[in-house]
Amino acid sequence: MNDDAGTDSGLLAPTWAGSPVEALLTDEAWLRAMVEVEVALVRAQAACGVAPASAVTAIAKAAEAARLDVRHLARQSRAAANPVVAFVPTFTALVSAVDPAAAEYVHRGSTSQDILDSAAMLIGVRVLDGIGADLVRVADALARLADEHRHTLMAGRTLTQHAVPTTFGLKAAGWLTGITDALIRVRQVRAGLPAQLGGAAGTLAAYQEYAKLDGLGRDFDATELIAPFAAELGLAEPVLPWHVLRTPNVELGGALQLVVGALGKFALDVQTLSRTEIAELAEPPADGRGASSAMPQKRNPVLATLVVTAARQVPAYVSILSASMLAEDERPAGAWHAEWQPLREALRLAGGAAHTAAELAEGLVVDVGRMRGNVGLTQGSIVAERLNVALTPALGKATAKKLLTRAAQAAAESGDTLGNALAADEDLTGLISAADLADLLDPAGYVGPVDTLIDRAIRHHRAARHHA
Amino acid sequence: MNDDAGTDSGLLAPTWAGSPVEALLTDEAWLRAMVEVEVALVRAQAACGVAPASAVTAIAKAAEAARLDVRHLARQSRAAANPVVAFVPTFTALVSAVDPAAAEYVHRGSTSQDILDSAAMLIGVRVLDGIGADLVRVADALARLADEHRHTLMAGRTLTQHAVPTTFGLKAAGWLTGITDALIRVRQVRAGLPAQLGGAAGTLAAYQEYAKLDGLGRDFDATELIAPFAAELGLAEPVLPWHVLRTPNVELGGALQLVVGALGKFALDVQTLSRTEIAELAEPPADGRGASSAMPQKRNPVLATLVVTAARQVPAYVSILSASMLAEDERPAGAWHAEWQPLREALRLAGGAAHTAAELAEGLVVDVGRMRGNVGLTQGSIVAERLNVALTPALGKATAKKLLTRAAQAAAESGDTLGNALAADEDLTGLISAADLADLLDPAGYVGPVDTLIDRAIRHHRAARHHA
Amino acid sequence: MNDDAGTDSGLLAPTWAGSPVEALLTDEAWLRAMVEVEVALVRAQAACGVAPASAVTAIAKAAEAARLDVRHLARQSRAAANPVVAFVPTFTALVSAVDPAAAEYVHRGSTSQDILDSAAMLIGVRVLDGIGADLVRVADALARLADEHRHTLMAGRTLTQHAVPTTFGLKAAGWLTGITDALIRVRQVRAGLPAQLGGAAGTLAAYQEYAKLDGLGRDFDATELIAPFAAELGLAEPVLPWHVLRTPNVELGGALQLVVGALGKFALDVQTLSRTEIAELAEPPADGRGASSAMPQKRNPVLATLVVTAARQVPAYVSILSASMLAEDERPAGAWHAEWQPLREALRLAGGAAHTAAELAEGLVVDVGRMRGNVGLTQGSIVAERLNVALTPALGKATAKKLLTRAAQAAAESGDTLGNALAADEDLTGLISAADLADLLDPAGYVGPVDTLIDRAIRHHRAARHHA
Amino acid sequence: MNDDAGTDSGLLAPTWAGSPVEALLTDEAWLRAMVEVEVALVRAQAACGVAPASAVTAIAKAAEAARLDVRHLARQSRAAANPVVAFVPTFTALVSAVDPAAAEYVHRGSTSQDILDSAAMLIGVRVLDGIGADLVRVADALARLADEHRHTLMAGRTLTQHAVPTTFGLKAAGWLTGITDALIRVRQVRAGLPAQLGGAAGTLAAYQEYAKLDGLGRDFDATELIAPFAAELGLAEPVLPWHVLRTPNVELGGALQLVVGALGKFALDVQTLSRTEIAELAEPPADGRGASSAMPQKRNPVLATLVVTAARQVPAYVSILSASMLAEDERPAGAWHAEWQPLREALRLAGGAAHTAAELAEGLVVDVGRMRGNVGLTQGSIVAERLNVALTPALGKATAKKLLTRAAQAAAESGDTLGNALAADEDLTGLISAADLADLLDPAGYVGPVDTLIDRAIRHHRAARHHA
Repeated sequence: MNDDAGTDSGLLAPTWAGSPVEALLTDEAWLRAMVEVEVALVRAQAACGVAPASAVTAIAKAAEAARLDVRHLARQSRAAANPVVAFVPTFTALVSAVDPAAAEYVHRGSTSQDILDSAAMLIGVRVLDGIGADLVRVADALARLADEHRHTLMAGRTLTQHAVPTTFGLKAAGWLTGITDALIRVRQVRAGLPAQLGGAAGTLAAYQEYAKLDGLGRDFDATELIAPFAAELGLAEPVLPWHVLRTPNVELGGALQLVVGALGKFALDVQTLSRTEIAELAEPPADGRGASSAMPQKRNPVLATLVVTAARQVPAYVSILSASMLAEDERPAGAWHAEWQPLREALRLAGGAAHTAAELAEGLVVDVGRMRGNVGLTQGSIVAERLNVALTPALGKATAKKLLTRAAQAAAESGDTLGNALAADEDLTGLISAADLADLLDPAGYVGPVDTLIDRAIRHHRAARHHA
Repeated sequence: MNDDAGTDSGLLAPTWAGSPVEALLTDEAWLRAMVEVEVALVRAQAACGVAPASAVTAIAKAAEAARLDVRHLARQSRAAANPVVAFVPTFTALVSAVDPAAAEYVHRGSTSQDILDSAAMLIGVRVLDGIGADLVRVADALARLADEHRHTLMAGRTLTQHAVPTTFGLKAAGWLTGITDALIRVRQVRAGLPAQLGGAAGTLAAYQEYAKLDGLGRDFDATELIAPFAAELGLAEPVLPWHVLRTPNVELGGALQLVVGALGKFALDVQTLSRTEIAELAEPPADGRGASSAMPQKRNPVLATLVVTAARQVPAYVSILSASMLAEDERPAGAWHAEWQPLREALRLAGGAAHTAAELAEGLVVDVGRMRGNVGLTQGSIVAERLNVALTPALGKATAKKLLTRAAQAAAESGDTLGNALAADEDLTGLISAADLADLLDPAGYVGPVDTLIDRAIRHHRAARHHA
Repeated sequence: MNDDAGTDSGLLAPTWAGSPVEALLTDEAWLRAMVEVEVALVRAQAACGVAPASAVTAIAKAAEAARLDVRHLARQSRAAANPVVAFVPTFTALVSAVDPAAAEYVHRGSTSQDILDSAAMLIGVRVLDGIGADLVRVADALARLADEHRHTLMAGRTLTQHAVPTTFGLKAAGWLTGITDALIRVRQVRAGLPAQLGGAAGTLAAYQEYAKLDGLGRDFDATELIAPFAAELGLAEPVLPWHVLRTPNVELGGALQLVVGALGKFALDVQTLSRTEIAELAEPPADGRGASSAMPQKRNPVLATLVVTAARQVPAYVSILSASMLAEDERPAGAWHAEWQPLREALRLAGGAAHTAAELAEGLVVDVGRMRGNVGLTQGSIVAERLNVALTPALGKATAKKLLTRAAQAAAESGDTLGNALAADEDLTGLISAADLADLLDPAGYVGPVDTLIDRAIRHHRAARHHA
Repeated sequence: MNDDAGTDSGLLAPTWAGSPVEALLTDEAWLRAMVEVEVALVRAQAACGVAPASAVTAIAKAAEAARLDVRHLARQSRAAANPVVAFVPTFTALVSAVDPAAAEYVHRGSTSQDILDSAAMLIGVRVLDGIGADLVRVADALARLADEHRHTLMAGRTLTQHAVPTTFGLKAAGWLTGITDALIRVRQVRAGLPAQLGGAAGTLAAYQEYAKLDGLGRDFDATELIAPFAAELGLAEPVLPWHVLRTPNVELGGALQLVVGALGKFALDVQTLSRTEIAELAEPPADGRGASSAMPQKRNPVLATLVVTAARQVPAYVSILSASMLAEDERPAGAWHAEWQPLREALRLAGGAAHTAAELAEGLVVDVGRMRGNVGLTQGSIVAERLNVALTPALGKATAKKLLTRAAQAAAESGDTLGNALAADEDLTGLISAADLADLLDPAGYVGPVDTLIDRAIRHHRAARHHA
């Protein structure tokens, strides 16, 4: 174990350790994004004519070559309670080595929060793009399952009990719809993530003041910087500096919540349906995956567990982002600082969960026979609701329900089928033929308009998919 | 104290007690909404030709006259862990008294969650409409303040310290922008809140099965019910039943979060600026408001406190809604049930906060003189950043910063002004004229492009306002 | 539906609606507790000689007869952002009607927070006492189950898969231990819940100043009031006023968390083991309980669902209490106010969950045959770990694990037993006799020291139980 | 920037980056703790006679020399959703290199959760010990301030407004008491943190089965291992395996919450009292600390901000731990896994906050003159409550309050003192002498029994301090 190694490489976070999102969110990646923001700033200033092209050249060159000591900067960040204050002189020195005159143009007119918030949004966009691509993979796989298993009968379960029949295709269509809605929201939010540019107290005053030095004089309006700066970063242009208007952060958190929530629903169902006693689904096999340290026979639903693990954490992280909307003054003493780690962890978990879920969805093993077999476990009672409907004209809804309840209990106690219990019930004599009863008892006849429902979900998915 | 009184009339929730939102969220209002959903259901069935017009007439009539015993139903709801199971026979009996044949059409094919989720969305729409109207009031008042106080100088504060000058108009424009963004999202979410229609396990099977009884036969596809049902309720049509796809709830919670967050930012600033030592803002006076039980001289910022109180609670309530996306099977055993109270409380708090904030914004008392006076508290240091800029051509950014830091400290220690400290600094001799220095030291000259920024905020507000 | 009815009678909270805890937490109960606190205050003052006995008599008399208009007071509480400011003059008027001179002694020297915090702690003690009694009921029932089912074989499940055998007695012993630890903490916290007495800013100055009027003069130290005041209320004596030191609230919340967490674990296992496919446990039958609005055959685990519902909400409510430790100044503008409703709801949910769990534990239906049957579902693989151990001396741990993994997979694929798969494996030939293998394959022989473990849990329970 | 560097070195977490707690919680530290747990396990087995001394020697030797590739193990942990499954064969290979026979005794009978939970508790103990030491430093410094500033007059503030006078000594005594209570709880919880030992499903079966191989035979009861194993680690002995009884984790989280909450209250007050307009406190100066990237004159309260930042996050992290009490079966598929990162982050933040607060408390700069000056800001109204008391005998409480309210408003409007406004009020003529009025208006005379209160706090602190 190396003392120089980082403090957290994901040992306790297998949801994202080693997944593609990890590299987007390392300390190094944050520093790199901060460098990119500084470059975009001077480019925007040059585009407005308030910085020389030579400064852009030198700063961009230094940025490309920059090797920064992450741990040293992390430690130094305690002095200002944020990493930018330590980063700026370090980066300035690198620029100075390239071109001393250009050093004056580093971070010119800027403030820590412009750099860090813009860097966060830059990272946010990249993570959302990755998530978007993975959600499309998940959705495509689920759409295939929905289509393929339109009529694969399985038990619909409510409050842990078999309720009425459904099909695995409709179940997959449900997962698909949740994920499609998350995808739509991810794209909306991604398109709106804004650059941050305000200067010390959100007035842009220093940006404007520096512009005077560079010959444009009093007529330069520093709001002109916002659009080119945002464009350089591929971010949206904000109405105002949002140092203390934290809507973008909360919208980003909300999108991540929909991602882990929709994926978590899918994963949780996979876990349930993988239970030894149910065994309708299994995770895609992979060498060594799902192994236990002690039990040779086990195959644990580890992909689903990685996804569920994310879904259990993100609501709390988002609640911190939400609470930070209560940000006093022009920059708060804590509310802003409390956002960074929960935002990072939420991004990592959502990114890792999406990547993991793609593997899970694409390789999901479906046991059609087991699904059909489980439907029969309650010996016919799974269609008791249908019988209730069918008997209503003859008996009225309430009386029919009482009769069915009685028959279902009798069947459960005797171990006999509901059909036999009903056939033996004197109150039914003459009301229904044996053939009609047999027909009604067929669960395949009681799955509702599953085709139409599945078609709706697939259409919704396709529309969203092609809208990208 | 009356034993028959309700358990919670808002004694511990002054944010919403007595405000218009309260009546939308009582137990009575929830029952009323459930009744409306049952009526909408039979109307939709009749529109599709699977229920007779006479059933609609009788059910609507019973609904209008319905007097339900809330406490009795609340107690009975323990038997099924939800209030619908007890409500349905009670309501059915009322219909039966009007027209026994119609009683068969009450809740026909339905399930508890169709009723309760649809009722929740119905209430959600009404609350969001009320919030939208109150946000417009808040925004209009803030837009007026932003416009009127474009050049009202005040201290920009970061990490509790005076940083650089700003104007009260820009501060109000910031509040306005947060609230405008919340309003936009409230309207988006409101437009998408869907009706719930799925039947026992989301297959619509019973709705379809009952339709067979009514003569339409096998060709009726129960998905046809969804659109007219949603239309009856003024709700959106869902792609699929969303019993276990809780996106709508989480989107609703997210919108409420933006509301209380944006209002909370405004209220928190009012509290800070009302501090005895700052005293730049005061709440609108009202007889008896803000009084202390013990201290005759006090006037507490109670309206702002009511708003902040909401903003401190809602993130946690929303986190419960988010966690409930992890809903297993076709209906979960707890995740759904855990949503009801936090959703209700979040709706109440957001509604009460919006109503309260409207009164606060419309009557806010601004002390312009005090704002200007406070700007001078640091004896000129509030424009030190500007001087840093101005001295950069002569000294370089870093040297200028050192000189300014030294002068600012000297001024702070001696109690003298920054101007005098600079005039006495030998390193500055000959670099800047007294007249230029005086000009630079004028805080009114260092507020950046406030007019442009305020115009942006007002335009954004107007566009959103008229989009309604 | 009656317009005068309360806003929330528990229609959406079946966990507590109608349970004994409900009455302890109505608005009326809060007002009643506030009255009790005012009576205790004057009693303490009289005990210290700084109020006349006649004042006590009159105030106590008025308190007994007090009929307060909850809804009116709730609405009035908006003016001060707390209910005490409106309550005090109302109550004073009632005292005045009994004895005008005594009216001067109502709320004498006091402040809203002294009254409301003390009332909250008073209610907290009562709720914890009720919870303690219910936890004892739950624990007693679980101890009986643990003892009775020491050797009732069942599958131990990890990550949803059968792992190794356990017994239902050990499972019950686990639930028992969690609940015992919660009970211990409930009692610790209950014993420490303090009265609140500080006056306007926690200096007790007004209490001391009023004492001067009553002839005791300068030598009276108002801290003398704390102990008798606390004693009157049956609360602990605080070191200091804790207006902005919110440890007691957070400790109370923490105790409630342990209660719902420990009960929730029990209830969640009941839900899982009640699944149609597992069916090892069932809830105690009761007329109409667990019924579905649509499916006649269903019996839902509603008691467990009510408990789980509580456990899903309380962590978020406690997080609000925790965040309120960040309370600025001598009384905060929001942090205090945000505590009231989440504390009330957490108390209600924990109280309702404990009451519900007692019924669940006392009537739990155990299907021993089904448990035993499920153990065999994996055809012997549930003891694969044991075979791994047994084969280690001959093969080494790693080789043995590989062999077992191969055999378990072969058995799973062929549907044959693990025993047969092993018997057929050439690598095992001669290493183990058929009799030894059969012995090793008996799951009853691989449950570890369950008796000792169960005895430990029962001893722990008994020690805690008798410590009360 | 080095691609091999860790993903998170604290760049976004200045509260703990570089503080002593950081090293206790790196991935390397977690691996090291896992190694220690494996060593403790074989030592306990040897102590019970079920493992040879030679195995202990070899395993301990390998442990000391172990160099593990953190990032590789982190990536491998995805295959099992936990890091132990990958760690065990790696560590076993290291032991095997020392002594092949000893390799059979690595992780013998164990399961991932025994190792990881025990490691977490080991780390928890170390962090709590560090926190305890830092809390003592904070408390000692605050006790000195409380004692020294017993009579340093300052304004008591409620709902942001001056209320009545207090002293800085009493304020410090309040902070001290919150922190003392946190310290007491930290020690209680630390003493109870248990080792984890249960085997695959909490039955200890494999530990017992392996023991048979080592000659002790059937009479060995594996519960005998628990006490020596816990003793080796310096942890408490659990009643039962607590794989799914997560009380220890929640109690640990609760203790961390009290730490950051009590420290956060202190830090939040420091921030408020450091405001430019209030300026009663300042942070200890240090070179470069509190500097702004843009404003040369600023000195931000960065230490306080680092502490507040922690206090804003921990409630959410603890809510995740609490939610994980809902852990199904003998090991849950997600609830356990979701605990690791929030627990780690809560430990880091609490440790960093305690370390930071010690520096803050020990160097806090108090401006006594400013405190006294601010008391006078309301021109006497700060003692209006006292005058209300004093005038009660003559006028009655209610009439006196009205008169005072009127006079306080008159004074506020005219800018005159309350004393002059009262002297001019005809209703007071003849009721109070000028000398008595002057005496009553002295705020130093209205601070209540501050000495007694401060003595109580200091005694409480000393008792707790020496109890360690």
